[in-house]
Amino acid sequence: MKRRAFLRNGLMALGAPAVLPVTTGDAAFLTPRQSRQSGDLIRLSSNENPLGIPPGSKEAIVGGIGDGNRYPGNSRRALQEAVAQRHGVPINAVVLGNGSTEILQMGVQAKLHPELRLVAPAPTFEDVFEYSEPHPWIDLKPVPLLPDYAHDLTAMEEATRGAPGPVLVYVCNPNNPTGSLTPVEDVEAWIRRAPDNVHFLVDEAYFEFVDSGSYRSLDKVAFENPNVVVARTFSKVYGMAGIRLGYAVTHPDNARALQAFAAGTNCNHLALVAGLAALRDGDWVGTSVGANLESRKVTYAVLDELGLEYLPSHTNFVMHRISGDLREYINRMREAGIRVGRPFPPMLEFNRLSFGLPEEMERHAETLRDFRRRGWI
Amino acid sequence: MKRRAFLRNGLMALGAPAVLPVTTGDAAFLTPRQSRQSGDLIRLSSNENPLGIPPGSKEAIVGGIGDGNRYPGNSRRALQEAVAQRHGVPINAVVLGNGSTEILQMGVQAKLHPELRLVAPAPTFEDVFEYSEPHPWIDLKPVPLLPDYAHDLTAMEEATRGAPGPVLVYVCNPNNPTGSLTPVEDVEAWIRRAPDNVHFLVDEAYFEFVDSGSYRSLDKVAFENPNVVVARTFSKVYGMAGIRLGYAVTHPDNARALQAFAAGTNCNHLALVAGLAALRDGDWVGTSVGANLESRKVTYAVLDELGLEYLPSHTNFVMHRISGDLREYINRMREAGIRVGRPFPPMLEFNRLSFGLPEEMERHAETLRDFRRRGWI
Repeated sequence: MKRRAFLRNGLMALGAPAVLPVTTGDAAFLTPRQSRQSGDLIRLSSNENPLGIPPGSKEAIVGGIGDGNRYPGNSRRALQEAVAQRHGVPINAVVLGNGSTEILQMGVQAKLHPELRLVAPAPTFEDVFEYSEPHPWIDLKPVPLLPDYAHDLTAMEEATRGAPGPVLVYVCNPNNPTGSLTPVEDVEAWIRRAPDNVHFLVDEAYFEFVDSGSYRSLDKVAFENPNVVVARTFSKVYGMAGIRLGYAVTHPDNARALQAFAAGTNCNHLALVAGLAALRDGDWVGTSVGANLESRKVTYAVLDELGLEYLPSHTNFVMHRISGDLREYINRMREAGIRVGRPFPPMLEFNRLSFGLPEEMERHAETLRDFRRRGWI
Repeated sequence: MKRRAFLRNGLMALGAPAVLPVTTGDAAFLTPRQSRQSGDLIRLSSNENPLGIPPGSKEAIVGGIGDGNRYPGNSRRALQEAVAQRHGVPINAVVLGNGSTEILQMGVQAKLHPELRLVAPAPTFEDVFEYSEPHPWIDLKPVPLLPDYAHDLTAMEEATRGAPGPVLVYVCNPNNPTGSLTPVEDVEAWIRRAPDNVHFLVDEAYFEFVDSGSYRSLDKVAFENPNVVVARTFSKVYGMAGIRLGYAVTHPDNARALQAFAAGTNCNHLALVAGLAALRDGDWVGTSVGANLESRKVTYAVLDELGLEYLPSHTNFVMHRISGDLREYINRMREAGIRVGRPFPPMLEFNRLSFGLPEEMERHAETLRDFRRRGWI
């Protein structure tokens, strides 16, 4: 429901038609209907890691159950230290989140202001828009992606001009749902010349999957600049979507400001010990990224074979063309036992497909071939 | 830091001196200092359940690890259904929280308004005040407890009068840190006559420990009235403080309003399956409450023996008198290997002591006797 409302608003702002397919969303919120589809479907819908969580994290969870009755203290501190060390920043530059989505929520809430403007690419990950929904006065400025699916930084910067109050800029790099990159040096240059009222929330959820020599994190820039937050998650490469853990790197002053919007003792003890074990596993990221590349290959091959355009992916999902109605395509895939990604208007000729295990992608490939035989794509 | 600021504000509002002992808080937030004390101390500080989490919940967590890489869907739905059934309300009257503290946060945020007034007993659990801190325009009205430590409902109702905008009333019943009850029928009567601008956030965190025939939940009242939220937690009787799970019961319209302030997929899968197993364990509440009564007995006995006044407890902690400086007392207890509760101004002649295992309470009793011999209490 939240998502739908955003999509409608967002699209109207883009001048697109207001009648849209209804999405189901990744998570079950209030309405019963939303969680029912999961069943035994192959889940290629939510950019989860099909390998599961790292073995060391599983052990850490089992080992942590005995302290499950205690409010986390030491485990929280240990993870903050490990994250700080990983990014080469002091511990007070790290804010932990109940998933990186809580970081995005803090990022929006910490900038709430009667004249707040929110500038974001479109389409992109919906959460910042969802967190702005309860505050309908926020001036939303969705900015269409460039033809190469990078953020249109020029137009986004233009959209920040003349703002009567603070501006929050959401940068999702690589971008979800397009899997595409925006040149980091251009983002950084904009940050350096931006006036004080412009704040940046940089989402690097898919950082580890990027296949580009020129890509890098803006963690150090965030540490130096109270107007910049870098958000990271354990849900993707570390496979911990259901365990809920993420964090922000930012200037200590801003870290304090964000922290005021955390939900109390926000991270659970099992996530904290699992996250620490994951960071200490020197092989996991390579294993995980390698498996993702295998699956990517299988899927690229069938898309090439069928002549279905796709956007080169820097993530654990790919946006590819379908033909025909997207909602019908999603339903047919579900009938075939596969749950694929939700609609991301205005890209309604594309489907976002998350990479599962290679054998799951083979099954998906066979299904696509079958759809072609039936004339559905 | 957040807590300290509140205490200062709260106390100034009560006309108490502004110079206060520095508290350490239950949870480690940003500052390194805060999590260090836990070590191998006996923790009688945070109203945790010394029995740990229920055996079935432990099994459920181990069984749930394999789905830790998936955003929770079915487990979320299953818990919502179980909670709804328990309270005899439909599923859309239930909002899940990352601990009940997130419910309190949603409760404050959903009522944010330039002229919001917050009425709460003093002292009480600090979280609603903490969540109001980033919004310094909120008009805080702490209302001292009655001589019997019940909420002063008359004075609280008086404090809602003449408000230019919405009023949020926090009711903590039983109250933390005093463990005392406020007559439910009086709260309900107030709710029924309150004007539309007055909203109630009723915290029943310690519901199961109450030892009174006239006490009951306001869950049904909350379901019928969009102005009322009842908050519950799995942290206390179910021993899941580190796993993070709580919920709200409220009118479906208000549930939707609260949900908009949830941090995305806010509950972790392990908490959801553990919570469901806990609800299905027909013996746990009795076991847990029984163990608490044993510990309570040990502590009452030593307090009686030493002539230290205490407030009859309806919770898993007791507020008892000390003599001398509270901060010094807390430090001395820590040196003796026991972490006791933080200061709750203005009750600085009292210490809040959480009930651990009976043998831990024996150790605490011995320490108290030793303190008496040394002339410290």
